[in-house]
Amino acid sequence: MAICFLFQPPLKPINIPPSSTKRAPIFRCKASFSTTITTEPEPQPVFTFVKSFAPATVANFGPGFDFLGAAVDGLGDFVSVSLDSSVRPGHVSISEISGSSKLSSNPLFNCAGIAAIAVLKMLHIRSFGISLKLEKGLPLGSGLGSSAASAAAAAVAVNELFGAKLGADQLILAGLESEAKVSGYHADNIAPAVMGGFVLIKSYEPLELKPLVFPSNQELFFILVSPDFEAPTKKMRAALPAEIGMPHHVWNCSQAGALVASVLEGDVAGLGKALSSDKIVEPKRAPLIPGMEGVKKAAIEAGAFGCTISGAGPTAVAVIDNEEKGKEIGEKMVEAFLKEGNLRSVAMVKRLDRVGARLVDSCPR
Amino acid sequence: MAICFLFQPPLKPINIPPSSTKRAPIFRCKASFSTTITTEPEPQPVFTFVKSFAPATVANFGPGFDFLGAAVDGLGDFVSVSLDSSVRPGHVSISEISGSSKLSSNPLFNCAGIAAIAVLKMLHIRSFGISLKLEKGLPLGSGLGSSAASAAAAAVAVNELFGAKLGADQLILAGLESEAKVSGYHADNIAPAVMGGFVLIKSYEPLELKPLVFPSNQELFFILVSPDFEAPTKKMRAALPAEIGMPHHVWNCSQAGALVASVLEGDVAGLGKALSSDKIVEPKRAPLIPGMEGVKKAAIEAGAFGCTISGAGPTAVAVIDNEEKGKEIGEKMVEAFLKEGNLRSVAMVKRLDRVGARLVDSCPR
Repeated sequence: MAICFLFQPPLKPINIPPSSTKRAPIFRCKASFSTTITTEPEPQPVFTFVKSFAPATVANFGPGFDFLGAAVDGLGDFVSVSLDSSVRPGHVSISEISGSSKLSSNPLFNCAGIAAIAVLKMLHIRSFGISLKLEKGLPLGSGLGSSAASAAAAAVAVNELFGAKLGADQLILAGLESEAKVSGYHADNIAPAVMGGFVLIKSYEPLELKPLVFPSNQELFFILVSPDFEAPTKKMRAALPAEIGMPHHVWNCSQAGALVASVLEGDVAGLGKALSSDKIVEPKRAPLIPGMEGVKKAAIEAGAFGCTISGAGPTAVAVIDNEEKGKEIGEKMVEAFLKEGNLRSVAMVKRLDRVGARLVDSCPR
Repeated sequence: MAICFLFQPPLKPINIPPSSTKRAPIFRCKASFSTTITTEPEPQPVFTFVKSFAPATVANFGPGFDFLGAAVDGLGDFVSVSLDSSVRPGHVSISEISGSSKLSSNPLFNCAGIAAIAVLKMLHIRSFGISLKLEKGLPLGSGLGSSAASAAAAAVAVNELFGAKLGADQLILAGLESEAKVSGYHADNIAPAVMGGFVLIKSYEPLELKPLVFPSNQELFFILVSPDFEAPTKKMRAALPAEIGMPHHVWNCSQAGALVASVLEGDVAGLGKALSSDKIVEPKRAPLIPGMEGVKKAAIEAGAFGCTISGAGPTAVAVIDNEEKGKEIGEKMVEAFLKEGNLRSVAMVKRLDRVGARLVDSCPR
């Protein structure tokens, strides 16, 4: 499939008015396209080819465990989709996967494929088949929302191909179909991957999301340090306490409140302090990642405002308001992973992504 | 003691810059005046008489349990303090208590007395004795921060008498001395009683407070319905679960985050929804207040954005953005208390107090 325009990210950010998200809670994906496939009008494609990008995301922000996530600029996955007459109408075929050798090219077992199919169903597409190409920019199982980035990019690409009929909420529901099959029914990666910025997950039944706008005149950098270590997912989940004492519950709730306030006020120091303050999840999970406790200590000593585990790990995430300072902190964190955990690691300093999944290339029909 | 000026509340609101609170966390009261009584300079009184007011407060805002409180306009306690040569220097004598027959006039066992003594100690007053008059505007044990209002008013009055040397943080620590002896070491009533508005308690060691500014261009009304019922404090405390399951913990944390965001954004509907969403404390406590569940239902049906128990009860608190609508909702809640709980009750509709404890009258020296 020819690429008609040079790559210029972002050519067209998706327009997601926060108020529409807040005031029009919608229902879960399965309910929304169960009965009306034959009666709904079928949108026509407006492109023959579309390429999209979706960012990495940091979830489980300390006391923001399981309900708060943020998107990371300049790091993520690309998905290209094309109308393909050789693909059965209403279906998706994965033609190519680059950047990872571990992913299935069966769309039913691939994050991008599942989300693409979900969007086709939501749009009631029955006359066009699609081929999909996935370019992984994110490593798998790093705690940076790899599966969500693929799903978000695919959902946005298919939606754009047919004229962007679906809103952010529906794209997130499509992505949730994928997340549910791959890593559990949680929206704290897929929501910021689609919408950008910080997103608070208020509820699932119905899905209600609250975008938290970090002030545009403030800088926020994530220092992401990924060690050469596979975080054992089962162990990370098994480490979560089943029951929590009231004092720790109240503490984490208050820190979650302080975290949300810090985001809205653009208070990076307060944000860092709050994300560092988890007394429930991080203390159980950190010991399972060699060196993590030392890495956190090194980050704080080097001037980071706070540090915790990104997602379920093994990536460590720290925050700062200055890029150069962030690089220095990253070096100290890499040293600490080697010294304390005997692990080699890679540090990146990335801005908050305020846009989310977006179209980066297209070919009009 | 002569009252030199007519009562005109507020004559002089206390000036509490939020940033100073945030950036200068201070230490617990006991540590702050333990060793330096004899060496510190003693401030001179600038008034012979001072009268102060401190507002009622709503704490335990649903998922804001134990860390979030707000002040209520036009409802609270008055404290008058006077220099009195018949009182032993450095000591406090309670000369009169009106509005309640149940309170001790021994300052060591009276909320206002304890806070007044704490402030005298913090200021290192050793040459002047003080007589104190307490006018209770709040009923005891109603869940409206009655003890905190007395303590806040007393702390502010004594501080003003000697030229307002102490900041809000220290006045709150003085009030905490009182709260600790009367109702437990918690700051979610005393902090908003002193500072006004919404206050988030971030930590106690050291005490760190985060004022949450509700936008000045938005209206917020509390509908407070107090039934003729004594909430059994021991039972209310015993009803709290010792352990909380992870799903409920995550749910309440996310709602706490949404609550904080709603306050900062001035989103009364979101605030109401969040304060109504507690799955941990309210479900255990509401059944102990006859009719409370029906009252909540009646409030929501009548248009309230949300409803929960104020403090440890028995007062029910609902929120709305319109005073007239608030009165209608209050009537329905009173009806429900009678019908569902066989309790007579009184409804009030009050604005958010944005000022906190303040000087309302004074006589210069």
